[in-house]
Amino acid sequence: MAVRHFIEPNSFSLDEQLALLDLADRMEANPAPYAHLCDGRILATLFYEPSTRTRLSFESAMLRLGGKTLGFAGAQLSSASKGETVADTARVVSNYADVIAMRHPKEGAPLRASMYARVPIINAGDGGHAHPSQTMIDLMTIRQRKGRLDHLTIGFCGDLKFGRTVHSLTAALSQFEGNKFVFISPEELRIPQYVKDETLTPLHQTYKETTDLEAELPALDVLYMTRIQQERFFNEEDYLRLKGCYSLNAKLLELAPPDMPVLHPLPRIDEIKLDVDNDLRAAYFDQVHNGVYIRMAIILALLGIPDPLTGKTVLN
Amino acid sequence: MAVRHFIEPNSFSLDEQLALLDLADRMEANPAPYAHLCDGRILATLFYEPSTRTRLSFESAMLRLGGKTLGFAGAQLSSASKGETVADTARVVSNYADVIAMRHPKEGAPLRASMYARVPIINAGDGGHAHPSQTMIDLMTIRQRKGRLDHLTIGFCGDLKFGRTVHSLTAALSQFEGNKFVFISPEELRIPQYVKDETLTPLHQTYKETTDLEAELPALDVLYMTRIQQERFFNEEDYLRLKGCYSLNAKLLELAPPDMPVLHPLPRIDEIKLDVDNDLRAAYFDQVHNGVYIRMAIILALLGIPDPLTGKTVLN
Amino acid sequence: MAVRHFIEPNSFSLDEQLALLDLADRMEANPAPYAHLCDGRILATLFYEPSTRTRLSFESAMLRLGGKTLGFAGAQLSSASKGETVADTARVVSNYADVIAMRHPKEGAPLRASMYARVPIINAGDGGHAHPSQTMIDLMTIRQRKGRLDHLTIGFCGDLKFGRTVHSLTAALSQFEGNKFVFISPEELRIPQYVKDETLTPLHQTYKETTDLEAELPALDVLYMTRIQQERFFNEEDYLRLKGCYSLNAKLLELAPPDMPVLHPLPRIDEIKLDVDNDLRAAYFDQVHNGVYIRMAIILALLGIPDPLTGKTVLN
Repeated sequence: MAVRHFIEPNSFSLDEQLALLDLADRMEANPAPYAHLCDGRILATLFYEPSTRTRLSFESAMLRLGGKTLGFAGAQLSSASKGETVADTARVVSNYADVIAMRHPKEGAPLRASMYARVPIINAGDGGHAHPSQTMIDLMTIRQRKGRLDHLTIGFCGDLKFGRTVHSLTAALSQFEGNKFVFISPEELRIPQYVKDETLTPLHQTYKETTDLEAELPALDVLYMTRIQQERFFNEEDYLRLKGCYSLNAKLLELAPPDMPVLHPLPRIDEIKLDVDNDLRAAYFDQVHNGVYIRMAIILALLGIPDPLTGKTVLN
Repeated sequence: MAVRHFIEPNSFSLDEQLALLDLADRMEANPAPYAHLCDGRILATLFYEPSTRTRLSFESAMLRLGGKTLGFAGAQLSSASKGETVADTARVVSNYADVIAMRHPKEGAPLRASMYARVPIINAGDGGHAHPSQTMIDLMTIRQRKGRLDHLTIGFCGDLKFGRTVHSLTAALSQFEGNKFVFISPEELRIPQYVKDETLTPLHQTYKETTDLEAELPALDVLYMTRIQQERFFNEEDYLRLKGCYSLNAKLLELAPPDMPVLHPLPRIDEIKLDVDNDLRAAYFDQVHNGVYIRMAIILALLGIPDPLTGKTVLN
Repeated sequence: MAVRHFIEPNSFSLDEQLALLDLADRMEANPAPYAHLCDGRILATLFYEPSTRTRLSFESAMLRLGGKTLGFAGAQLSSASKGETVADTARVVSNYADVIAMRHPKEGAPLRASMYARVPIINAGDGGHAHPSQTMIDLMTIRQRKGRLDHLTIGFCGDLKFGRTVHSLTAALSQFEGNKFVFISPEELRIPQYVKDETLTPLHQTYKETTDLEAELPALDVLYMTRIQQERFFNEEDYLRLKGCYSLNAKLLELAPPDMPVLHPLPRIDEIKLDVDNDLRAAYFDQVHNGVYIRMAIILALLGIPDPLTGKTVLN
């Protein structure tokens, strides 16, 4: 049987994505039956750029399944500094681990790795391209809060140009009927044309673009905030000018519906003020919590381990 | 029940501190009954500055209890580089681990983390402030060697200004009756006034300050040596002038009582010569050995896991 | 009983080396009986310079034996930055782990560590000196491919001056009768005189030196390619001139015997082209695969754990 990988959300069919969300929900409700499913298995975390959250979340997921981990937390700690290709690293690490989570600054690196690996590759973020486990987390959190993934008006606010989580979630939500997308950003950080061309237009999704968060707030079902990412800018000046352009606070949130969850992939800087944290609509720490279960589900899916409660695997 | 943290020695009451030392002694004598108490539990080691000894000691402690670990070993490997606050990191990592050991260059960072974490925080050293697990190790080692923690004359020698282990141990030993403190340092590295004001004076402890190690040696029950820490100096010149100011060797040790243990928090550079290592009074490698048991005891204490031999928990 | 270490291949007698290879072969054929032999044991990986392959291979080995790991992946993450000696680190880490794998840029550092450690030290590569687990991997792979370790003509090609794997393997193969050594390198990177003086000459081994790979290929039983290692050069110019001096490709390989395995310690840059990878003679990914079993065998050997299938330990 061919090895499956998780490079972008649609590496899994829509049915498989939904099965993944269901499994994550079941594990969150009742983790005990899953605590030894990966005994004796090893996850490698190959992180060519640092990420506390994503790396530790994957490692925690594997540990909570009974498995073990190894890996590196920065390119300077890897053989990349000796000029090794991602293809060779993937082949090599296939001997050390049963599944690999890879973060890489270059778009396409995990895909390339998957062409050479003998074990499943999980894309844990590749430059501006995709971060599919984050997308599953976002879907899980929205579904928990709203009870559905269709017929929603979703506002995306902040850096929509470089924010790969926005691109991925837009694509993922486009699979469902009746969603409306509101893209709120400064002119310089608008959603790229290719995202609209490739995901919104072909599926006849409704969207609009605006710079005005305040005006849109009352009509949103979901608000997805993002950080202006310094590391994606080529010059400091542009970053400094744009970094404070949106800032959600308790006052502003009064304009929003009482059941509008606020999501954010974290880390956040100033774009969500601390006075929002205790508002029941703040869903970004839920996302972190859900992240471990989503990653547990991805690992089980790719290793072909069935849910002991249902007897079913996520992938067909 | 409120989550307890270990931010400084007196985060625990004196009774609790003594219960912790007792537990560590029992585990050192007989580790087997404790080998699976943390099966399925995870320790996160969040080290914003490098420390082989402390990080590996905490990790070894958790592994020897049957638990698992994850974390990072330097700020450059964390999301701190993206501007995340310690508060957010603490909230986030609460989802990945059952207990967190944090080292941070800024005083107060672990305290701040503890205000936001949903799991226990252990301060593994915060700048010049505190390093409470080291203090417990020092107490354990002194008690093993001297049979008591009171009515002792303790000499502290070296960098008493920046040496947080000295400040913490001074405070801890001030809790016991009849101790005398001899602070031996160059003028520039004298014990800070606030340490004397806050811990020694209120408790009517006896102390003196001097620059002369040799003159004090014959009267000491315990000698606590410290490293002149280059990383705490603002200019290289001061460091170079002071780094060799005290150097304990076999010859000098002839002046000391035959049962005066020599402690040092390590790493050492030149302040204790190699010819001291085989002297029975050398207790600094005992400290390292005890360190694992102290950290096992701290983890068990904070997780509320009772000692299977006594049925009791460390914390009330 | 004295603690044994693995600092260079002949830290083990020839009989012990062969017992080690036999154990690795048995584990590769059937890993299941070995999966819990190191339950409760800890491996420390102390890597003073980065190495994805070797570090992860050792960690995978320990995990596959049921053990656990801790350590650091670069000197900047260790107390070396505070001036601690390797001797002190070895003594300290003896308290945290049951066996230590150490990589260090300075020749002799693991040997020095072994003089102070209370647990076994494995040299995981020390500068230009030795990398004995790699040598065992090379022997295991050659024996699998050729059925023997004697009466072979072995070509070594590339950087024979700084390539420690070449020096170690030359010494190891010199223990067997009738081997012929063909050293193929640019003038500047010839095999050092001391290697010839110390290992080849006393054992009356036959060898030749040449710059011409193509001419030698038809007569080789085994070809061992190496990378021109940038990190060993003092100036960039020399590196750039020499780095592309040999490059094995499918076309060139047509000149070689059909059963001549091509070994390489990896990582490779350009010295073996991708079109060689699918040739059955390509043995370098076999080496990676064997690496985990060799390291499992080394750990079991040094911990004195007998093979459950034979009841025997590797070391006498």
